[in-house]
Amino acid sequence: MRVSIETRYSDYDPGGHVNNACYVTYFEMARGRAWVEAMGMPPEFPFVVSEALVRYVRQARLGDPLDVEVTTTDVREKSWLLRYRVLDRRDDRLIAYGHTVQVMFDYATQQSVEIPAELRAKLAAV
Amino acid sequence: MRVSIETRYSDYDPGGHVNNACYVTYFEMARGRAWVEAMGMPPEFPFVVSEALVRYVRQARLGDPLDVEVTTTDVREKSWLLRYRVLDRRDDRLIAYGHTVQVMFDYATQQSVEIPAELRAKLAAV
Amino acid sequence: MRVSIETRYSDYDPGGHVNNACYVTYFEMARGRAWVEAMGMPPEFPFVVSEALVRYVRQARLGDPLDVEVTTTDVREKSWLLRYRVLDRRDDRLIAYGHTVQVMFDYATQQSVEIPAELRAKLAAV
Amino acid sequence: MRVSIETRYSDYDPGGHVNNACYVTYFEMARGRAWVEAMGMPPEFPFVVSEALVRYVRQARLGDPLDVEVTTTDVREKSWLLRYRVLDRRDDRLIAYGHTVQVMFDYATQQSVEIPAELRAKLAAV
Repeated sequence: MRVSIETRYSDYDPGGHVNNACYVTYFEMARGRAWVEAMGMPPEFPFVVSEALVRYVRQARLGDPLDVEVTTTDVREKSWLLRYRVLDRRDDRLIAYGHTVQVMFDYATQQSVEIPAELRAKLAAV
Repeated sequence: MRVSIETRYSDYDPGGHVNNACYVTYFEMARGRAWVEAMGMPPEFPFVVSEALVRYVRQARLGDPLDVEVTTTDVREKSWLLRYRVLDRRDDRLIAYGHTVQVMFDYATQQSVEIPAELRAKLAAV
Repeated sequence: MRVSIETRYSDYDPGGHVNNACYVTYFEMARGRAWVEAMGMPPEFPFVVSEALVRYVRQARLGDPLDVEVTTTDVREKSWLLRYRVLDRRDDRLIAYGHTVQVMFDYATQQSVEIPAELRAKLAAV
Repeated sequence: MRVSIETRYSDYDPGGHVNNACYVTYFEMARGRAWVEAMGMPPEFPFVVSEALVRYVRQARLGDPLDVEVTTTDVREKSWLLRYRVLDRRDDRLIAYGHTVQVMFDYATQQSVEIPAELRAKLAAV
């Protein structure tokens, strides 16, 4: 799934580019959009993130329009891996890429749990 | 170097814990403190981040006091690697850990450059 | 001008609603969109904010789609006032409202300056 | 009460100064510190913010150490007003000032409620 990201002036730091931490937020935005729009789930997120990796390729400057591609690449018993590519919308130049690992989580019992079968199929489709 | 991190209410998300993206900011805070306080450099940062990794071990809840340990583990020609551990200040329980890669950068020419010799020594001391 | 705002999961705090500080950012997003899209200016902002007021009417919850209306209500010699209304996109219920004052600013000399005549006309049109 | 604020590199925007929205967060930090440290309350916040005003007097630049003074100026039946001054720690120069209004709130019933008598006394002492 590919989504457009609305960057904010406050995402940019005195270096004149998007601050490095924002990319983890952009990943989260793409993940949330995939969850709600591609998977048809409600905007609640019964998982925790156990790992995040970002590799920064080019600076994103004020006015650069950004897209994020998000793809499920691995669904295990309790966790799944999502890969992301942040692209300049105008020419698809790669700005950054990375991944996150999500672990299915029951907030009531505060424990990791198995991914329900119906969710497993939806995850694989992103 | 080990520094205390002042968390903010707005760092916490509806999951009741520090949002995953904030850890990259906590790494940046520790990196900045090391740069200014341990290395004696001015609060300007002539480098870009080329990679960030975070592994999340435990949730940080409201009121949990956090420290970050930051250590230089590798200094190359143009880049250096910093490792971080986020700890509960009360009992040193590990909350998260990870690393970032910094690349020496000349913002005027927008190019990566060699790490100056005097900076190299200071980096190794963190 | 009325714009849609892409909220982020990290905008929400443990109260389960958008954190109060984010509304000032939403105002900034609407201001920037008006500047670029309605006024045709480049994404650089030669002004500083001298005042911001937000009145919070209803909580915005996860999944609530938000719009911001922004209107110029007063253009003086060096400053102008923008008013904002944050609305639920589905039923136009008022979530928050407020204003900001902008002062034309020359970053090179670090001084406030008069609003150029051509900009004055564009501001009045928002 | 006067507290030191740990600013973050990501608080600064391409203008080279603290972004305007961050001051509302700095107010929140001072409010939270007063709540926990001066009033002895747990780090949970049974109120909502109904109004925030910031007046920006001087830019805060990288390396400027900031303090926030917070004072209760009005305690009503269900709400109270806090005033804030953001100061340069080195010379007490005024950077920004403003206020917020808090409304006592029962998150379980989602309704505003009266301020308990014991809290009323603690609020007046800040």
